[in-house]
Amino acid sequence: MFELLSTQGRARRGVFTCPHGAAQTPVFMNVGTQGAIKGAVSAPDLKELGCQIELSNTYHLHLRPGDEVIRQLGGLHRFMGWDGPILTDSGGFQVFSLAGLRDIREEGVTFASHIDGHRVFMGPEESMTIQSNLGSDVAMAFDECVENPSTYEYVKSSCERTLRWLERCKVRHDALNAQPDCVNPGQQLFGINQGGIYPDLRVWHMEEIAKLDCDGYAIGGLAVGEPTQTMYDIIDAVEPHMPPDKPRYLMGVGTPGNILEAVWRGVDFFDCVMPARNARHGKLYTWGGWINLKNEQYKLDDRPIDPACDCPVCRRFSRAYLRHLLVAGEMLAMRLAVMHNLYFYNALLSRVRDALDRGEFDAFRREYAQKLDGKLAE
Amino acid sequence: MFELLSTQGRARRGVFTCPHGAAQTPVFMNVGTQGAIKGAVSAPDLKELGCQIELSNTYHLHLRPGDEVIRQLGGLHRFMGWDGPILTDSGGFQVFSLAGLRDIREEGVTFASHIDGHRVFMGPEESMTIQSNLGSDVAMAFDECVENPSTYEYVKSSCERTLRWLERCKVRHDALNAQPDCVNPGQQLFGINQGGIYPDLRVWHMEEIAKLDCDGYAIGGLAVGEPTQTMYDIIDAVEPHMPPDKPRYLMGVGTPGNILEAVWRGVDFFDCVMPARNARHGKLYTWGGWINLKNEQYKLDDRPIDPACDCPVCRRFSRAYLRHLLVAGEMLAMRLAVMHNLYFYNALLSRVRDALDRGEFDAFRREYAQKLDGKLAE
Repeated sequence: MFELLSTQGRARRGVFTCPHGAAQTPVFMNVGTQGAIKGAVSAPDLKELGCQIELSNTYHLHLRPGDEVIRQLGGLHRFMGWDGPILTDSGGFQVFSLAGLRDIREEGVTFASHIDGHRVFMGPEESMTIQSNLGSDVAMAFDECVENPSTYEYVKSSCERTLRWLERCKVRHDALNAQPDCVNPGQQLFGINQGGIYPDLRVWHMEEIAKLDCDGYAIGGLAVGEPTQTMYDIIDAVEPHMPPDKPRYLMGVGTPGNILEAVWRGVDFFDCVMPARNARHGKLYTWGGWINLKNEQYKLDDRPIDPACDCPVCRRFSRAYLRHLLVAGEMLAMRLAVMHNLYFYNALLSRVRDALDRGEFDAFRREYAQKLDGKLAE
Repeated sequence: MFELLSTQGRARRGVFTCPHGAAQTPVFMNVGTQGAIKGAVSAPDLKELGCQIELSNTYHLHLRPGDEVIRQLGGLHRFMGWDGPILTDSGGFQVFSLAGLRDIREEGVTFASHIDGHRVFMGPEESMTIQSNLGSDVAMAFDECVENPSTYEYVKSSCERTLRWLERCKVRHDALNAQPDCVNPGQQLFGINQGGIYPDLRVWHMEEIAKLDCDGYAIGGLAVGEPTQTMYDIIDAVEPHMPPDKPRYLMGVGTPGNILEAVWRGVDFFDCVMPARNARHGKLYTWGGWINLKNEQYKLDDRPIDPACDCPVCRRFSRAYLRHLLVAGEMLAMRLAVMHNLYFYNALLSRVRDALDRGEFDAFRREYAQKLDGKLAE
């Protein structure tokens, strides 16, 4: 369920509700691909980082440990120790980005596991069954994520098929929720808009999937090779055709600046591996821009990563200490850096919501969109 | 300062006091070699694990980030965020086990850094200066740790030199503590007994270093190649010659069973990398013996690692989840497994102290020494 509290231009302030609680939107979802957050961060740790929704992955969990295993253990919430909302990606993106030797047909995709190469078949029904076994609060529809650029003809036939797949997802999803032993019978289903970088395909596809009355809608297939301005243009084209009473999720995006620009264009949900990946390479966010903590200049720097940050890392440790851990190859560096960056992203969205509540989001976006994507001037 | 509260046979129950607080003994010290605990565990996390004393390493911290850096940042306590007692190893053991191309002379040792091969000189005075810069609560004397077996002649001349080095350590240590800008002027100095596997050398050396009135005494050079029974025999030989009013530290030992047997022989302090290293390979301790969590049998096991354990990991996560993390190569597996094993070691010593307080330590040792070193029968 989604309640729209207020708008500023196209930007939206809302509340999303699902079986495991509510999330204030706009919201950034923290990624725990395999049921754990990269960098030795646990689900209970996420609470301390201000996380509202955790995101895990159908493809990975199906391959290892197996969704049937997780179902037998009571579902993903219990398995990983997270009692808040969980959204599961459908596996579509990973099948097309990670797996090998794909064979795409109308019924679904046969692919080779990236772990051991064994052949796996996944179609709309399989993806829905896996996500039902995991017991997530939001299941994502099984789609084909086409890389940019692809030909108009290919994208057209692909998103026509993705529409047919969504119809099949919906049938199976409803049937699974109705089963008496369903792990999470209140699970919602979000449809995914595709259409590459072709505005007419995007709009046509969005209009078609909107008719299917999903619980929410995602824009997929962006941030996969196209220029940033093209991404914004596609959001501009699609957004007017998204149902205003349903949450909107821009998949896999992005930098702090990208998020502010997408909120400005009417998006409510985000996820991205970037803050954790950057952290592991020593790129840490501050409210004045990012820093590369590996730099020699931080060797004797007794300040926290960001003196304006009140995260568990900034409250306790200095740049000098974290730099030492990074340079020395200590695993603790990964944990502390990831914790800081995830906290920063969650805090960014919290400040976005505050700005929307005060009707000052445009000024906030103008102040921070470029600054946060740039290097801190020191 | 050391207060002996009670004894049972040769086993001792005491309280050790230093500038950053008191520790109940017998005590297990948790190892943070480079100023961080392996497995993404932070110093503040150690509090939750029942740790009383943290141990860091002179050799590693001198090479990286440099003890002068840590001194400028206010000392090791502030650097790593630990306000409890810290003991620093002298670097002697690492110079002889990690570094390359050693040249041992009366003045000290020249060696090649294991990081980049650059030549470094360390003698008694350098080790004392580094440990003073780190500001630990207990500095260990600089010694030569001879591998077992070595010839009687070599061990004899080596431990004669180690005695001369201790005399030099003491002079320098007193001078450093007296300097007005000393990081931790209450730093204590422990001497280290050597002598290989030769009881007469061990006893002679112990009698000589006891005359120097150090704040505590360690038995070094054990668990470096000799049979376990030999280790116990050496402790039996040396212990009667250790001053009863000073704490006794058996360096780098060992399994739970080794620790129980050494407590029974009059030892107060322990440290070992084994619980963290075993954890990283999936070998986890329970009160019924260890388990190998990688085994297929735990795939659907919903129980905690040890149902009798109340550590932060056992309170939240199942064997099945931890096994999944291990098999999937998630860094979180390392953290959770290390946390459990460190908690177990700290809890083991807590139960040792309780048993001593009740005068029932011998029964406790008989019940657990073999069981804990064996595999859990399931």
